[in-house]
Amino acid sequence: MRWIRYTATGKTAYGIIDGDVIAEVKGDPFAGYEKTATQHALASVQIELPVATPPNFFCVGLNYAQHVRLAAKKLGIEAKMPENPDVGYRSNNALIAHGRDVIIPADATEKVQYEGELVAIIGKTCRNVAEADALKYVLGYTIGNDVSERTWQKADRTLWRAKNSDTFKPMGPWIDTSVDLDKLETRVRVNGQETTRFKTNDMIHGVALYISTISRYCTLHPGDVLWMGTDLFSPDLKHGDVVEIEITGLGTLSNRFVKASQA
Amino acid sequence: MRWIRYTATGKTAYGIIDGDVIAEVKGDPFAGYEKTATQHALASVQIELPVATPPNFFCVGLNYAQHVRLAAKKLGIEAKMPENPDVGYRSNNALIAHGRDVIIPADATEKVQYEGELVAIIGKTCRNVAEADALKYVLGYTIGNDVSERTWQKADRTLWRAKNSDTFKPMGPWIDTSVDLDKLETRVRVNGQETTRFKTNDMIHGVALYISTISRYCTLHPGDVLWMGTDLFSPDLKHGDVVEIEITGLGTLSNRFVKASQA
Repeated sequence: MRWIRYTATGKTAYGIIDGDVIAEVKGDPFAGYEKTATQHALASVQIELPVATPPNFFCVGLNYAQHVRLAAKKLGIEAKMPENPDVGYRSNNALIAHGRDVIIPADATEKVQYEGELVAIIGKTCRNVAEADALKYVLGYTIGNDVSERTWQKADRTLWRAKNSDTFKPMGPWIDTSVDLDKLETRVRVNGQETTRFKTNDMIHGVALYISTISRYCTLHPGDVLWMGTDLFSPDLKHGDVVEIEITGLGTLSNRFVKASQA
Repeated sequence: MRWIRYTATGKTAYGIIDGDVIAEVKGDPFAGYEKTATQHALASVQIELPVATPPNFFCVGLNYAQHVRLAAKKLGIEAKMPENPDVGYRSNNALIAHGRDVIIPADATEKVQYEGELVAIIGKTCRNVAEADALKYVLGYTIGNDVSERTWQKADRTLWRAKNSDTFKPMGPWIDTSVDLDKLETRVRVNGQETTRFKTNDMIHGVALYISTISRYCTLHPGDVLWMGTDLFSPDLKHGDVVEIEITGLGTLSNRFVKASQA
């Protein structure tokens, strides 16, 4: 089942995708919903963020072995695999939907890169859940692009503008509730050319372990998002580039990159 | 003027404090409000978080000279003052209101400490605002306790449970819209005994500079909170301790600490 949040004829709503058609619902997938008689062609709506303002925005930093090795190499340090699922954070101001432009700030360097990530969306409140039960609290999955300005990432004390500048967190296009994590492959294309491909579930620490571990200390809430990190590395992106992140069987998140001074 | 969010006779609302009385409003201080005829005695209501779920939760890490020196000493490194106002993040799951208990996790070490902080609450959307205009976008101020488990802070890769365990972020009791930042003094008491006192506005980088800098890259939204950091250091807190953070002229945030296994 696929949930989509969209705007059509001036109204933003949740709907369920069936082929090329959206069946509008009253309510939402978290607090409850009723089906309505309203339908829209999928191609005719404006796709919105699958969750407008997540209560908590969790994001895993280092979660794929090759990425850890390449990141260490760039920094000239020894690669060290994370021993524990210590989670980090991003900020909602940076979220944009599928199809919207990523605005590269005018003073950014040329080191602007994508990170294609699986995103788990929490469906039910959970606290202190066992790893074996953790996935029951996931409503479904979507795709995230953890856009990063690598010069700022090295220079600043925190990741604030390197990772959280406005528009740096595309997320979407929809929520798929029935994916088989082990079958997914993440493929990233820049202007139609494939630049990155990896097995989505080749994570150092998986979704279930992260949720279980976080929930020992932090209550997870409906609508919370958990971005699972990325593998490999991106080329530097420039004005006009279109980045498509496909997770096979889940969908494709596509956004154009636009340099602010040229927007 | 003081805004309070509270529950009385089963209903949660915003109100304006006038002496010992709350005048209930319809709406809120961000999107707009109308006064109502309903009144409550301030002492009779349950105080709630001044903002239930901030869209973005900014928190300054190192912003007072003495705190930077003491933190460096504890880590055995040289003290280095932050050159730029690089902001960090906390997570909404940890927020609790004035009067609620901070629950110390059962497996926490004895290194649980308070940090008394001024909190600026954004009232209006702002982007790319000059430092001279930045405070116009602040609705008002409240108080935060950035509770920290120092062992986890050193051991984990991120601050997730060290700073964001459930109940680790008391905030309140209300929003004061007319404070003079230069006149404020932060005083912390544990079980009635003063343990910390510093001039609230003796910050390395002030509220206006932080807002101006953040807003160059990140849009600030109504209800966003900006925690401004703390000075000096806290003693280790134990089961039963009551921590009161007073900012003179603004109010007092009071919370009891309870060890989970003994809750």
